[in-house]
Amino acid sequence: MTKNDKINFSTPSGFPEFLPSEKRLELHLLDIIRKVFESYGFTPIETPAVERLEVLQAKGNQGDNIIYSIEPILPPNRQAEKDKSGETGSEARALKFDQTVPFAAYIARHLNELTFPFARYQMDMVFRGERAKDGRFRQFRQCDIDVVARGKLSLLYDAQMPAIITEIFEKINIGDFVIRINNRKILTGFFQSVGIAENQIKTCISIIDNLEKIGEAKVKQELEKEGISSEQTEKIIDFVKIDGSIDDVLNKLKYLTENLPETGQFNLGVTELETVINGVRNLGVADKRFCIDLSIARGLNYYTGTVYETTLLGHEALGSICSGGRYEELVGIFIGEKMPGVGISIGLTRLISRLLKAGILNTLSATPAQVVVVNIQEDLMPIYLQISQQLRQGGINVVTNFEKRPLGKQFQAADKQGIRFCVIIGAEEAAALKSSLKDLQSGEQIEVNWADLGEEIKRRILNPETI
Amino acid sequence: MTKNDKINFSTPSGFPEFLPSEKRLELHLLDIIRKVFESYGFTPIETPAVERLEVLQAKGNQGDNIIYSIEPILPPNRQAEKDKSGETGSEARALKFDQTVPFAAYIARHLNELTFPFARYQMDMVFRGERAKDGRFRQFRQCDIDVVARGKLSLLYDAQMPAIITEIFEKINIGDFVIRINNRKILTGFFQSVGIAENQIKTCISIIDNLEKIGEAKVKQELEKEGISSEQTEKIIDFVKIDGSIDDVLNKLKYLTENLPETGQFNLGVTELETVINGVRNLGVADKRFCIDLSIARGLNYYTGTVYETTLLGHEALGSICSGGRYEELVGIFIGEKMPGVGISIGLTRLISRLLKAGILNTLSATPAQVVVVNIQEDLMPIYLQISQQLRQGGINVVTNFEKRPLGKQFQAADKQGIRFCVIIGAEEAAALKSSLKDLQSGEQIEVNWADLGEEIKRRILNPETI
Repeated sequence: MTKNDKINFSTPSGFPEFLPSEKRLELHLLDIIRKVFESYGFTPIETPAVERLEVLQAKGNQGDNIIYSIEPILPPNRQAEKDKSGETGSEARALKFDQTVPFAAYIARHLNELTFPFARYQMDMVFRGERAKDGRFRQFRQCDIDVVARGKLSLLYDAQMPAIITEIFEKINIGDFVIRINNRKILTGFFQSVGIAENQIKTCISIIDNLEKIGEAKVKQELEKEGISSEQTEKIIDFVKIDGSIDDVLNKLKYLTENLPETGQFNLGVTELETVINGVRNLGVADKRFCIDLSIARGLNYYTGTVYETTLLGHEALGSICSGGRYEELVGIFIGEKMPGVGISIGLTRLISRLLKAGILNTLSATPAQVVVVNIQEDLMPIYLQISQQLRQGGINVVTNFEKRPLGKQFQAADKQGIRFCVIIGAEEAAALKSSLKDLQSGEQIEVNWADLGEEIKRRILNPETI
Repeated sequence: MTKNDKINFSTPSGFPEFLPSEKRLELHLLDIIRKVFESYGFTPIETPAVERLEVLQAKGNQGDNIIYSIEPILPPNRQAEKDKSGETGSEARALKFDQTVPFAAYIARHLNELTFPFARYQMDMVFRGERAKDGRFRQFRQCDIDVVARGKLSLLYDAQMPAIITEIFEKINIGDFVIRINNRKILTGFFQSVGIAENQIKTCISIIDNLEKIGEAKVKQELEKEGISSEQTEKIIDFVKIDGSIDDVLNKLKYLTENLPETGQFNLGVTELETVINGVRNLGVADKRFCIDLSIARGLNYYTGTVYETTLLGHEALGSICSGGRYEELVGIFIGEKMPGVGISIGLTRLISRLLKAGILNTLSATPAQVVVVNIQEDLMPIYLQISQQLRQGGINVVTNFEKRPLGKQFQAADKQGIRFCVIIGAEEAAALKSSLKDLQSGEQIEVNWADLGEEIKRRILNPETI
């Protein structure tokens, strides 16, 4: 074979791929996340990677995102089909850049087939034409849940979100984290109460949302640029910096409900927040796992109530590892109906890449195999195959070595791949229906009857004390 | 909210999406397939959806496929970035149309990080610009395994494939199926022995491969068109129609090895086939699950030895539900190295769609929830939340009803979604730390202590006799 030196076979910039040890970690995390999502009754959907361009651009939802359109390239022998393939300009299609717009389209497409409140999870790949920088990918997997209703949606759905976030990150064993909860109505109401004009409130909230990132001095400057007086700015900064225990902050907010000029929004926001906090506690989430942070707002203006961010303690520079909130006018856009919803999102590809770099997570072994049946005598292969199948039927992942090599090399190769056990059967052992089981983790080698091999291996995998 | 009537929110033609009950079936099948793949030590990888166009078109691998290229569309506020985004013609990128070419690129990209023989599985989406007809999708999921080596690859890897196919389809519970095995060297060798010219052999094999589809008369015509004599044609047809038990066919082939003019290829093919068949048997695959079918060749010319097709008995019109074979010059194309490999592929999206239509598979319930904690008294919500969490910690998927509705409606809604159990707690029950458990499948309603609820539900799920 000749090598075609001219072909650049590297991945296109920004399109990541994982080594097996990394992909296995991703699948492990996806399994955990899916299990938690499903335990709360969220059901899976997957929308196509490709949507009509007009869907993706509906109501200006493209936002700042660079979308990739798709265009068919015919092979040389099928050029004549060009006109028949039905790919005209009006049929322009593109890759989805998030899961929200396609979710809205999914709801419109299947409105009468779905049961509301509809709680769904989605763990699809999305595509954005970002300039590829560290941690910015052009293709990445997002793990999203949303529950949406026709009519009213209980605030207890908002309360479930921190419980779900807590369970996921405790199971991933990621270290200490805190979920910061706020309610945009509180911010809106407070801004109204200090006399900020209605048309400036969203901008001011966006500026405040950056407090942690750009610092107090910069926030003050930006508010000043918007024409906010220094007195108003002081009040705002003092307000969003309110801290203390969850109950401290709640009490301060309740005090303000009786002492601020009435705005409607503020008091409603505080009541909503209290309901959510009570729900989070009733769901058994420990107080150390969440706090009220009046400075967070989620830049996205479609959030209208509860908002969440999740900070990994000691790794604040990673930014929020799971965010979301409540919205009203987002998923009903294609059917012209207000559909209240609440959702969260984990940007999994980015999270894995950053947690690996930060040493917070480790990759798994390069193979799911737990056992190698080594090959020391070719004519015993039928026995090697039989023993391999017996172990597989017991739920163990097994590689049979088909190539005969020195035993030491076979051990080494297994160890290098992170395979823990080797099963060794020579002529004598075969005659006695026995095998030697080598535990590469402990170095130990014991004799085990064929019939007991599966149980012995499973016992060792499950019980670290036997190592 | 106003509805934008002008937006066509349907999926683009050929890009399918599943309802929750269908997506849950897909995930269930993916779980089964992944578990079997991993039990043989196949490790997961996922290559990006997007590759450089030159990679996808390397060595003419586009074949007959219509590829989708991607092109960035900048949002209105970022038009100025056009020139900076690095998306020039020489960087042309497109969506992968299969997993073979990207696998070859993956190997080239990570040659020194992988351990050979490298056994990987991949269950990614691929994209082809087919005209959307019944069962032909433009985006679909393929479940592929391949094991490739640098140097030699044991024929026992070929033997594992039918064992893997058997396990998967037995676990999916798809009905009776048979894996048809052949070896292209046998066909090539036989064609040589009857005097077909070397440059005609591949074409003749392709014609024979269509025997089942187009029938004997049409095959004869097409062979005649190629200038094959009627005597040669008779011999060929007689040969590929050899049937009988596995041992019958093997014995007939072995007889021919001693009676045909020596071609090298034929005898080698028979020896390979016998080794593979022995391996399949040693792996415990029942004889009823496979046969030797000398007429199959897999159209794709890159196969060089063993080939497989899988037929669902009674549903032959579905075509092969899992196919594959051995190749030599496929995955080493980017590094200019012969890398023998053997692999199989399940076109999962198409398979599910056809099996559902044929009534062979049923969808799952629309939600993973197994239990609804109903809401009959708002002030007991803290207890409903607590009981829900307790059940979740026991591994049960639970929905808590946050909206209070008549009890009958809550039962109905649960039943409609396929949720089997309702947990009912009123004031009296709450005081006694008890609940009523309603099994909607049996209609039975029993009283259970809170502490025993999880075990009772799990017992009923696992043991159908309690229904």
